[in-house]
Amino acid sequence: MSAPALGVCYYPEHWPESIWAEDARRMKDLGLSFVRIGEFAWSRLEPKRGDLRFDWLERSIDTLHGEGLKVVLGTPTATPPKWLVDEMPDMLPVDENGHRRAFGSRRHYDFSHEGYREECARIVTALAERFGNHPGIAAWQTDNEYDCHGTALSYSPVALAAYRAWLKEKYGTIDALNTAWGNVFWSMEVDDFDRIELPIATIADANPPARMDFRRFASDQVVSFNRLQADIIRKHSPGRDVIHNFMGRTTTFDHFDVGADIDVTSWDAYPLGFLDDRSDRDDEWKRRFMRAGDPDFQAFHHDIYRATSNGRWWIMEQQPGPVNWASHNPTPREGQVRLWTWEAFAHGAEVVSYFRWRQAPFAQEQMHAGLLRPDSGEAPAFPEAKKVAEEIAVLDIGAESGQSAAAIVFDYPSSWAWEIEDQGAEFDYFRVVFDTYCAMRRLGLSIDIVPASVSDLSGYGLVAVPALFAFTENLTQALAAFEGEVLLGPRSGAKTKDFAIPESLPPDLPADMLDMKVARVESLRGDVPVPTGAGAFRFWREFVEVGPKAETELASADGEPALVRQGNLVYMAGWGDEALLEATVKAMAERAGLSTVDLPDGVRLRRRGRLVFAVNYGNERFDLTTLGLGGTAILGSADLAPSGVAILEGTR
Amino acid sequence: MSAPALGVCYYPEHWPESIWAEDARRMKDLGLSFVRIGEFAWSRLEPKRGDLRFDWLERSIDTLHGEGLKVVLGTPTATPPKWLVDEMPDMLPVDENGHRRAFGSRRHYDFSHEGYREECARIVTALAERFGNHPGIAAWQTDNEYDCHGTALSYSPVALAAYRAWLKEKYGTIDALNTAWGNVFWSMEVDDFDRIELPIATIADANPPARMDFRRFASDQVVSFNRLQADIIRKHSPGRDVIHNFMGRTTTFDHFDVGADIDVTSWDAYPLGFLDDRSDRDDEWKRRFMRAGDPDFQAFHHDIYRATSNGRWWIMEQQPGPVNWASHNPTPREGQVRLWTWEAFAHGAEVVSYFRWRQAPFAQEQMHAGLLRPDSGEAPAFPEAKKVAEEIAVLDIGAESGQSAAAIVFDYPSSWAWEIEDQGAEFDYFRVVFDTYCAMRRLGLSIDIVPASVSDLSGYGLVAVPALFAFTENLTQALAAFEGEVLLGPRSGAKTKDFAIPESLPPDLPADMLDMKVARVESLRGDVPVPTGAGAFRFWREFVEVGPKAETELASADGEPALVRQGNLVYMAGWGDEALLEATVKAMAERAGLSTVDLPDGVRLRRRGRLVFAVNYGNERFDLTTLGLGGTAILGSADLAPSGVAILEGTR
Amino acid sequence: MSAPALGVCYYPEHWPESIWAEDARRMKDLGLSFVRIGEFAWSRLEPKRGDLRFDWLERSIDTLHGEGLKVVLGTPTATPPKWLVDEMPDMLPVDENGHRRAFGSRRHYDFSHEGYREECARIVTALAERFGNHPGIAAWQTDNEYDCHGTALSYSPVALAAYRAWLKEKYGTIDALNTAWGNVFWSMEVDDFDRIELPIATIADANPPARMDFRRFASDQVVSFNRLQADIIRKHSPGRDVIHNFMGRTTTFDHFDVGADIDVTSWDAYPLGFLDDRSDRDDEWKRRFMRAGDPDFQAFHHDIYRATSNGRWWIMEQQPGPVNWASHNPTPREGQVRLWTWEAFAHGAEVVSYFRWRQAPFAQEQMHAGLLRPDSGEAPAFPEAKKVAEEIAVLDIGAESGQSAAAIVFDYPSSWAWEIEDQGAEFDYFRVVFDTYCAMRRLGLSIDIVPASVSDLSGYGLVAVPALFAFTENLTQALAAFEGEVLLGPRSGAKTKDFAIPESLPPDLPADMLDMKVARVESLRGDVPVPTGAGAFRFWREFVEVGPKAETELASADGEPALVRQGNLVYMAGWGDEALLEATVKAMAERAGLSTVDLPDGVRLRRRGRLVFAVNYGNERFDLTTLGLGGTAILGSADLAPSGVAILEGTR
Repeated sequence: MSAPALGVCYYPEHWPESIWAEDARRMKDLGLSFVRIGEFAWSRLEPKRGDLRFDWLERSIDTLHGEGLKVVLGTPTATPPKWLVDEMPDMLPVDENGHRRAFGSRRHYDFSHEGYREECARIVTALAERFGNHPGIAAWQTDNEYDCHGTALSYSPVALAAYRAWLKEKYGTIDALNTAWGNVFWSMEVDDFDRIELPIATIADANPPARMDFRRFASDQVVSFNRLQADIIRKHSPGRDVIHNFMGRTTTFDHFDVGADIDVTSWDAYPLGFLDDRSDRDDEWKRRFMRAGDPDFQAFHHDIYRATSNGRWWIMEQQPGPVNWASHNPTPREGQVRLWTWEAFAHGAEVVSYFRWRQAPFAQEQMHAGLLRPDSGEAPAFPEAKKVAEEIAVLDIGAESGQSAAAIVFDYPSSWAWEIEDQGAEFDYFRVVFDTYCAMRRLGLSIDIVPASVSDLSGYGLVAVPALFAFTENLTQALAAFEGEVLLGPRSGAKTKDFAIPESLPPDLPADMLDMKVARVESLRGDVPVPTGAGAFRFWREFVEVGPKAETELASADGEPALVRQGNLVYMAGWGDEALLEATVKAMAERAGLSTVDLPDGVRLRRRGRLVFAVNYGNERFDLTTLGLGGTAILGSADLAPSGVAILEGTR
Repeated sequence: MSAPALGVCYYPEHWPESIWAEDARRMKDLGLSFVRIGEFAWSRLEPKRGDLRFDWLERSIDTLHGEGLKVVLGTPTATPPKWLVDEMPDMLPVDENGHRRAFGSRRHYDFSHEGYREECARIVTALAERFGNHPGIAAWQTDNEYDCHGTALSYSPVALAAYRAWLKEKYGTIDALNTAWGNVFWSMEVDDFDRIELPIATIADANPPARMDFRRFASDQVVSFNRLQADIIRKHSPGRDVIHNFMGRTTTFDHFDVGADIDVTSWDAYPLGFLDDRSDRDDEWKRRFMRAGDPDFQAFHHDIYRATSNGRWWIMEQQPGPVNWASHNPTPREGQVRLWTWEAFAHGAEVVSYFRWRQAPFAQEQMHAGLLRPDSGEAPAFPEAKKVAEEIAVLDIGAESGQSAAAIVFDYPSSWAWEIEDQGAEFDYFRVVFDTYCAMRRLGLSIDIVPASVSDLSGYGLVAVPALFAFTENLTQALAAFEGEVLLGPRSGAKTKDFAIPESLPPDLPADMLDMKVARVESLRGDVPVPTGAGAFRFWREFVEVGPKAETELASADGEPALVRQGNLVYMAGWGDEALLEATVKAMAERAGLSTVDLPDGVRLRRRGRLVFAVNYGNERFDLTTLGLGGTAILGSADLAPSGVAILEGTR
Repeated sequence: MSAPALGVCYYPEHWPESIWAEDARRMKDLGLSFVRIGEFAWSRLEPKRGDLRFDWLERSIDTLHGEGLKVVLGTPTATPPKWLVDEMPDMLPVDENGHRRAFGSRRHYDFSHEGYREECARIVTALAERFGNHPGIAAWQTDNEYDCHGTALSYSPVALAAYRAWLKEKYGTIDALNTAWGNVFWSMEVDDFDRIELPIATIADANPPARMDFRRFASDQVVSFNRLQADIIRKHSPGRDVIHNFMGRTTTFDHFDVGADIDVTSWDAYPLGFLDDRSDRDDEWKRRFMRAGDPDFQAFHHDIYRATSNGRWWIMEQQPGPVNWASHNPTPREGQVRLWTWEAFAHGAEVVSYFRWRQAPFAQEQMHAGLLRPDSGEAPAFPEAKKVAEEIAVLDIGAESGQSAAAIVFDYPSSWAWEIEDQGAEFDYFRVVFDTYCAMRRLGLSIDIVPASVSDLSGYGLVAVPALFAFTENLTQALAAFEGEVLLGPRSGAKTKDFAIPESLPPDLPADMLDMKVARVESLRGDVPVPTGAGAFRFWREFVEVGPKAETELASADGEPALVRQGNLVYMAGWGDEALLEATVKAMAERAGLSTVDLPDGVRLRRRGRLVFAVNYGNERFDLTTLGLGGTAILGSADLAPSGVAILEGTR
C-alpha cells in the first residue's frame, strides 16, 4: 500500500471558471492529491434530453490535472434533473405512508425503476466513454451515499412488481413461500405471488419473514443498481478504481454486497453530527465529547469499511467544521480535524478527502463548513489539513497491520431482523455490536470486522459474534475449526434463515459445539438491570439450560447462568453493560494470550503493522507511559494532549 | 355455578396432525377442561372461494373430544383470506389519515362493509351447520378481540354511507340534527344528511356532538356485526354458549351492548404487557410491579366483565409468560401465573384459559410464550397451571358473592365524550374511574361494576358515579331511590345527551336531589395540586355554588367547596388524588356501615360468597392477621408470600 | 385619541331573539361601548345560494344600536357554508402531507382559490351595501384570525398555480430564478416556471430560497385576500374603520403588510392559553404564572400590533376566564382580567373587547368562558370588566406616548428564514426577539416595535435588531444616520435577500459602519453555555473577526469577541442569556441616557405620555417606591398587590 494521501470534494460548476485555476493551485499547495467532482452535476451535463455538455467538465478536469491533482469523477445519478423526472414521474419513490416523494433535493429515485436504470446506464456510459481514459481520472464514484435520507426503501408499484419477481425467483413455488413464512398463522396464505403485498399499512405488524424478505430484496436492488454502473465504468475506464461513498450508522442495505462490486469502499465521516444525532450515548457523554466526537464511533466505521472491499478504503468526505444537518452543529475543537484524519490513517485509510473545498454561500448546504470560507479565506480546518499533509510527506507509516488481534462479526441482515423483531424497545443490533466493540477498544485491542459469511478465522485471538440473526454454514464451520476464544450472545443464532425459532431452540449451533438452549428470553426496562458477579445485563436477558458438555462460568445474582462456556466458546446470556462486557472480554483476551490495557474514556489505540497510533478525544491530557507502553514516538509524544495524536514505534 | 375450570388456546392447523393426539392427552393430564380453536383458520377452512375444507377441523375436534376436552370454536372472521380481500378490496378499513389499510396481519375489515358481513354470515353458517351439534363443541367465540389494533373506527366511504343512514334513523330530520349538534356555531348547518361528512381532516376540531354520534355509530356497528354471528350460531348450535373475547383498557365500543347479545363475556388478560404499555402509573410503580402486574388492573377488568353479560365471564387468554407486543416483555415472577388464575376465580370467572398451548416458532407471535416451549418442553407456566388444576379439583369455593358491598358506574360513552373533550391534557375517563376503583380496593372493599342504565341500586352500601358524561333517566331514578352513600363527580352529569352543558348548569340532576351548580371548571398542570383538608385535587377542579339544601363537607385550602353533601349524595368537585379519594371513600363506607381495612400496595382482597380471597402482588411478605381478619385458610395461609394466594373462610 | 373603551363579542344567532334586548341592556349597563357580531354567521345569512337573509342581522344591529352600542360587523368568510364547499370542493386547502382538509369546523378555504375569492367578494359586497351606512355600524372586521389552525399555508393545485405565477412575476425569467435560488446545487435547475414544484415531499430539505419564496408568496396571498374585502368595505361603508383580528405568536404572514390595508389592527389575547401552549418558558415559570400569564407576552404583542397599523390598535378578543383549547385551562387569578385590560390601555389600545358575552353551552367552544355563564349568571370576569368600565369613565389617561425610549425591529420574513434554516434545534426568531424584549422590559424600558422597512429611527435612545434575516436599504441608511445605541446580532444581516451568505460574510453592512465579519457560527446543546464576562451565550454563538475600526467590548471566556462595538453599533456574537442581555442593554441604555430600574419577575412598567402604568403579574406584593419612582398614583397605589394595577403621574 502506498503512502496515505489527502483529498477534497470540489464543485467547479458552483464557481466562476475564472477561479478554477487558482483553486487548483491552492489545493496543490495545501498538499492535496485527490479531488472528487461531478457527482451532482447532471443538470449542467445535460440541461435537456440529449443535450450533453461535457466540455466544462473536461476543462475542470484538465485544470486539476494540470496541477497534478488526481480526479475522482462521480456519476451524477443521485440527482436526476427535473426534465427527466417529468418524463417519468413514477421514478420517484413512495414512502411508507404511500405518499409519492418529490423532486427538489436529491436521491429522488426508486431503485426498482427500470426506466431510470436505463437513464443511469446512458449517462454513465457517456461519461465513461468520454473521460474513461483521461489521464487526470484516477477513480470513479458511483452515485452518492446510497440510502441517504432513507431512500433504500420504496413502497411504489414498481417496487412491488420487482419484489414479487424477486420472491418468485427465491422460492419458486408459492407453497414454498407460504411454508417458509409460516403463513398459516392468521390465514395469511396466498395462492399466487401476485397476491403478495408490500409489508406496509397492515393493521398489526406484518409477518417478520415477509418483512425480512422485503429488506433483503431492497438491499439487493441497491446492489444491482450499483453494479450496473460499476460494470460500465470498468468497461470504459480500465485501471481506475470504482468507489462508492457509504455513510455512518447506515445498515439498510448490505454494504458487503455492494463492496464486493467496487474496488474501494469509502465513507463520509461527520463525527460531531453523528454524536449529536446518531448516537445512543447519554447527554453527559454527548456534552463531554461535543467538540471531539464519540471516541469509538469513527473507528468502528473505519474497521467496518476496511472489511467491505477487502481492505481498501477511503474517507471520501471528512467533516472540516460545523455541518448544517445535525440538531446541534458545534465547531470542532482545535486539532480535532487533524486527529480524525490521522485516526483514519491509523485504521488503514488510503485517502482522507475533506468535504468540501469552499463553503457554498447558497442552497441547502450553505451552513456546511469547508476548508475555505465562502469568501475564500481559510477556514480552521485548512491549517489542520496542511499540518497533516506535511506530516504524511515525511513519515513512513508502513503497511496496514493485515490482521488484528480480535475480530467481530458484523452482519447487515441481523440489523434488519432485530429492527423487525426488537422484542424490547431498546434492542438494536448496531448498538449491541458497538457495545462489544467499545469494550474491546477500552482494553486497547485492535479489531477487524468480518462478515457472517467468513469461512476462516484463524489468526485471531478473540472473535465476538454478538446478536447474529442466523449462523451461516461457513461461520459455523469456521467457529468449529477456530482455536481462539469466541464470545457469542445475546441472541446469536436465535433464528433460522427463514426467521423462525430453531427446532431445538437457540442458539442454532450443534450441541457438540455448545451444549445449551435458550429456554426463554425477556426484555427489561432500563431501570431494572440484572446484576451478575461482574457487571450486569441491561435491557435483555436470556434464561438458558446448560447441558453436560458446557459449564456455567458466571451466574446472575438470581442464580441463572450468565456466561456459559464450552471449550473456547462462551455464550453471554444477555446484553452486557460496560462492566460486564469489559470484564468478560478482558478475561477472554488473557486466555487467548492477548495483552490488554485500561484506557480512559477519551484515549484510544490502534496497532498498524509495527506502529501503535494513539489519539486523545478526551478533555484531559494523558500520559501513555502510564499504560506501560514502550517504544519511541515518531509523531507527537507519549504525553498526549486533548486532540493529540502520537505514533509509537517498537511498542510491545 | 359449577366449579371453576381451566382451558387453553390451541391451533391444530399450526402443527402436524401426528402430534394432535399427544397434545390432547397432555392437556387432559394437565387438568384442562376447555380448548379454544379455529378463530384464525379461514385460509385453511376455505383456501379458495367455496372450497370448504372442514374435515381437518372435525378431526381435531374429535381428537380433543376424545380426551374429554370441551371445544370452544372460534369463527374465523378476524382474518379474512387474501382471495376474499382481493374480491372486494373496499372491505379494508381506512385510517384517520384517509389511508386504506392493507392485508397482511389480522382484523383487516371494515365493520360497515355489507359485502363482508354477508361473507361472515356465509362462513359462520357453514361452520355452525357442520359443528353446531357436535358433542365436543361446548361454546363458540365470535370473531376475535373486536377493536384490537384500533379497528373499531374506520373512515371509509362505506362507513360514511352507514353513518349518514344511522344519523337519519336517529334524527329523522336534518333540522333536528342541526339543533342537537348546535350547528349554527361556525356556520356548520347543513340541509341534507348527505352533506354530513366524517369528523376527520377538519381544520379545527370537529363538533363534539358530531364526533360523539360518530363514536356511537361505530360502537353500534360492532354490536350489529357481532349480533349477526351470534344469531346464526344460536340457530344452529342450541345449548352452546356464545362468547366473545374482549381486551384490557378498550373502550372504543360499548361492551355492555355487545355483552347483551352473548352468553358469556370473556377477556384476554396480559398483566405485564398492560402495566408496561397501558397503565398511567409512574416509572417507580412500573419497576416495582414489573414481574407481577398492576395489583388492581386485572381485578378492575374482572369486575367490568362480570357485569357485561350478567355475571357469566371467562378469561379466554391468560398471559403465561413473556409476550411479544409490549415495550418491555419481562418474565412473570414465579407463582404469578397461578396468582392471576386464582384472582380471576376470586372475582367469579368460570374458566381461565391460557394463551397458548405451545409457543409457535414462526410468524408474528413467535416470541409469545405458551404453556409449552416451541420444542414441546414445559414452559414455566405449565407447572403453575397444573398446581391450580390440582387445587380447584379439591377445593369447593362455592358460589359467586352475588352482590358486592360497593358499586361503580362504568359507562363507555363517557370515555368517548371525554376523549372528544378532555379540556385538559390528562383527563381520561378510564383513569378517573380506575382511581376511584383503586381507592375502594385499597380499603379492602369488593366492588361491582354497573352500567349507566342501571335502574336499581338497592343492596349496595356505597355507589360511585365518577365522570359520567350524562345521566340516564334510569340512573337518576335509581339514585333518588337509593339509600346508601353515593359519590359523584368530577364531571358527573356535566352534559346533556346531546353533548351540551345542561341549561341550569351541571350536574344534570334535579335540585331537590343535589342543590348545587358547577359554575365553572379548570384543568391544571400536574405540578399544581389543589390541596384540601384531606389530600388534594389534581389535573381537574370545579368551582361549585352550593344551594341551601346542600352543605359543604370539605373545602379546598383556597376556601372553595371540595365535597358537597345532600342527604346520601356527595359530590367531589375535582379529580381526587390517592389520599383524598381514600379518605372520602373510607368515611362514606363507614357511614354506610361497611367495614374497611388499610391494605399495603400489593395486597388485595375479594369476598366471594362465604370466602375471602387474598393475593399478594407485592415484593414483600404480608401477614393478613394484622388486618384483624379472622377465619381459616382453606388455601395458602394468612402469612402471604409474594405471589401468594390465600382463601379465608369465616372471615368477618 | 379618544378615551379607551370596552367591548364584547356577541353571537345573536346563537340565542333566542327574545333575549337580545335584555342582553343589549346588560351590555350597556356593564359599561361596554362596542359589540362585534356576525363573523361566523354565513349559514344563517345565506342558507342556500342566493337566499340572502339579512333581516335578523339588521334587527340585532338595531337592538344593539338602540342601546347606544357601536357594532363591529364581521365578514363571515372564515366559515363558508357546506353548500358552497360542495359546489367547489377544491376550495378546501391541502396540508403538507398532500391531504385535502375537510368541512366541519372553520377556516376551511384556500387563500389561492379564485372561485372562493369571488364568493367572498359577493357576500362582503352584499353586506356592505346593506349595512355600510347603518348608523349602528362603527367598524368592520375582515374574516377572522387569518392563519388560525395553520391555514395560511396550503399545498393544493391552485396554490401551485398561483405560486408559479407569483414567481414568474417576481423573476421574469427562469434563469433569474435559477441564479437567485442557486439551483445549480444538486441539479435543481429548471427550464420553465411550470417545472417548479411546491417545496414539500422532497427527500432531503427543499432549497431554502425556494422555501422562502413560497412563504413570501403565501403571505402575499393573505394580504391580497384581505385587501379584496377591505376595498369593498371602504367603497360601501365610508367613515368606518376596517379591522382584522390577529393572534398571538403567529408569524406565518406579514402582519405589517396586512396592517397597511386596514385602519386598525386588533388582536386576540389569551394570556393563560398562550403561557401553557405557546411559550418557551420552563415548567417552573409556567407553574408560577399559571393564573396570571407571562408578564411580557401580552405587552410584546401590544407593542407589535401598535406598530402594524400605525398606532391604532384594539384587543378584539380578551380572555375572560378558562378557555377550551390549551393543554391546561386554569381559571385566571382574581383581578387578572382587569389587569390585562388595563395593561392593553397602558400600551395604547383604543378598545378592549372581551370574548365572549355569554358562554355557549353547545358546539366546539362550550368550555370557553364568557362574561356570562351559559345560564346567564355573571361569570367572574363580569365584575372585573365592570370595575374597569367605572375606572375609565372617570380617569383621564391622556394620549399615547407617541414614541418610546427604545425600539426593536420585528420582521416576519426573518421568522420564515430561521424556521427554514434553524441550523440548531432551538433557534427560533420569535424567541430571540422576545428574549431581547424581555431584557429591556425587566429594566423598565418602554419599547416600540418597528418594521425592517423603517427609514427613520431618530428619537430613540436604543434600538435592537436581533436576528434580522436581511437588512433593507432603508434600515441600513436609518442605522447609519441614527445617533442612539444600536444592538445587533446574533444572525442579523446573515443573509442576502436571496437567502445566500453575503459575499464578504455577515453581517451584511458596509465595513465603515461595522468593521467585522462572522467567520463562522455554531449551534450548541442547551447544557453547554458559552460564558462571557457577564452572562453567557446559549444555543448559538458566532466567531467573529474584528477589523481595525471596531473593537471588542466583551469577550467570551474562551477569548473570542462576544460584543463588538463600532461607534454606536454593538454586535452581540451569540444568543445572550438573561444575564448577558440584561447587562448589555443596561449599559447601552445608560450610554444613551435612558434611566433603568431593576424589576422583579412579575412587575412591569409602561410609560404612556405623562403617566407610568405598573402591573403586577407576580404572586407577591411589590412596593414601587423601592424603585425610586416618584409621582402620584391616580389609580391604585405604589404598593402593588398581586394582580394590582397602578398609574403614576409625574414620575421621572
